Amino acid sequence: MEDKTTGIEKLGEFGLIQHLTKDFQYSNPTTLKGIGDDAAVIDKSENEALLVSTDTLIEGIHFSLMYTPLKHLGYKAVAVNVSDICAMNGKATQITVSLAVSSKFPVEALEELYEGIKAACDTYQVDLIGGDTTSSISGLVLTITVIGHAQKDEITYRNGAKEYDLLVVTGDLGGAYMGLQVLEREKEVFKSNPSIQPDLDGHDYIIQRQLKPEARADVNKILKDLEVQPTAMIDISDGLASEIIHLCTQSKVGCHIYDEKIPIDAKTSLTALDFNLDPSTCALNGGEDYELLFTINQSDFDKINTNPNFTIIGHITHEKDGIYYIDKQGSALELKAQGWRHF
Amino acid sequence: MEDKTTGIEKLGEFGLIQHLTKDFQYSNPTTLKGIGDDAAVIDKSENEALLVSTDTLIEGIHFSLMYTPLKHLGYKAVAVNVSDICAMNGKATQITVSLAVSSKFPVEALEELYEGIKAACDTYQVDLIGGDTTSSISGLVLTITVIGHAQKDEITYRNGAKEYDLLVVTGDLGGAYMGLQVLEREKEVFKSNPSIQPDLDGHDYIIQRQLKPEARADVNKILKDLEVQPTAMIDISDGLASEIIHLCTQSKVGCHIYDEKIPIDAKTSLTALDFNLDPSTCALNGGEDYELLFTINQSDFDKINTNPNFTIIGHITHEKDGIYYIDKQGSALELKAQGWRHF
Repeated sequence: MEDKTTGIEKLGEFGLIQHLTKDFQYSNPTTLKGIGDDAAVIDKSENEALLVSTDTLIEGIHFSLMYTPLKHLGYKAVAVNVSDICAMNGKATQITVSLAVSSKFPVEALEELYEGIKAACDTYQVDLIGGDTTSSISGLVLTITVIGHAQKDEITYRNGAKEYDLLVVTGDLGGAYMGLQVLEREKEVFKSNPSIQPDLDGHDYIIQRQLKPEARADVNKILKDLEVQPTAMIDISDGLASEIIHLCTQSKVGCHIYDEKIPIDAKTSLTALDFNLDPSTCALNGGEDYELLFTINQSDFDKINTNPNFTIIGHITHEKDGIYYIDKQGSALELKAQGWRHF
Repeated sequence: MEDKTTGIEKLGEFGLIQHLTKDFQYSNPTTLKGIGDDAAVIDKSENEALLVSTDTLIEGIHFSLMYTPLKHLGYKAVAVNVSDICAMNGKATQITVSLAVSSKFPVEALEELYEGIKAACDTYQVDLIGGDTTSSISGLVLTITVIGHAQKDEITYRNGAKEYDLLVVTGDLGGAYMGLQVLEREKEVFKSNPSIQPDLDGHDYIIQRQLKPEARADVNKILKDLEVQPTAMIDISDGLASEIIHLCTQSKVGCHIYDEKIPIDAKTSLTALDFNLDPSTCALNGGEDYELLFTINQSDFDKINTNPNFTIIGHITHEKDGIYYIDKQGSALELKAQGWRHF
């Protein structure tokens, strides 16, 4: 059979970048100069500051190409970076993409990856302004740096939570983790017998949560419209428990969170039970949901409590009171992080 | 023998970053928030714009750990990024560092790498404001994103060269390439007989050019003091020929450059001849010197011609006249790029 794919050596490094980025357009007026010079040039207005964050996704560590389509991978890589800017209460505006791939990937595979990157750029209105593409000895390493803009007085750090503040999460949790469990199960089935079709029926929601997570880029505007300025914020990439501990440690406070308050989608719960897992444990330790965790002053209770985007899951206490999880039986357990470790 | 190294799994991802970056301090007032939140926060004054560039170094492609000490690698990775900001006529101010390493690297090896990164941060007065450290399946991948500041009206693009402008380079060329040739030769000798000591005598300068290149962060100020605003600028990372073609193509101009004008250090020339290589060819196609190539208006001739940092190597012509190299015999040859290809 004739191989119709194109080897990346045919285009060369410079040609490859040009080829992959030719359909990208700029949507932010702050992008004064994008790809094509030694550096990109970014403007900002006087009352703003710039936000910068970077994240690396590595084949075999953060994703498996056995079940992650390259287009989804590109989309997710952008979304998780945008999520970091959302967690500062800012708006993501530009990204750079550094890609290291072994020559086993044909140009067509990289086109798929960049299609996903472009789809995310369109969704979040961010401009691809630079990066490089080089060969690696093995596998695929994708590093994205995101730049965002925020009004200086609206930037939300991890360390601003105060005693008596309320702890709030967006959306629902644990779905991405259960999606991964389903994908891993089907991968094992496939390995032992490649002729069996994967059984993903009814798991669309949680698989989407795993493969194509969305950053909560809408939350910044919702909070602004509600006239709520969070006192501290972090995105939930490593699991709720780990993020709560980060936020409390950096704010030098304690907290109580309530099992019964943690928002979990019914599909996530059912799948967890199917796997003999406790849904709350999945929400607490699963990670990769990319929802936001933030704290608000008690005076904002009514504005947040009635809004379907948000769930109040607990409250901030004095540092000496510790970080506690109140379980279904009403017992207070010290909260421990069991987030993902990549080493 | 007892192994006294520390496995990176002992510290975990979060602890590792904390451990490696604990000695870094901030020297730029624009760094409002560095490591420790979802994103770093950067300020700038009203007449400035921000510059962003990113570069990846991959083991086995861009460097060999057989002869690149990790400290040098860290230094070089920062320097080559700073160089991109210098090429925009700006000042590098912040970096993020993304590191992917296999677990074969003990913590002590990463400490060495970060020592080099810190040394470069000190030299160039840039602040490490973020990044991540994750495991890879094999080898080491280092992605650095650099942020710089520049007065908006002083930013120098690649596309501003005009007919009759003069072409100028800083420093001398070809040294980094010849340094690499010496290191590669000694690597082959070592492979065939590990008991033979490497013969690097007399090659300090060119080996330093290869292993510890410096960005020309001084040029921005020198030009400002001379009251010279370059019309176009690019850094010489892939070889003079390739960079001249980039600059001319983007500026839509041609040029004549003169073999006899190209600045080559005597040690570079002697080593080239020793390897049966033409020194000019090494300067034109070698790459990795990280000097700057820029164009100036003819009216600035006197200011530049008398300055020991600069060499005028040719002049800009009409686009139709093409890009020509005038050799030692006075023959005009069309200039071709034979820069490094990493695929």
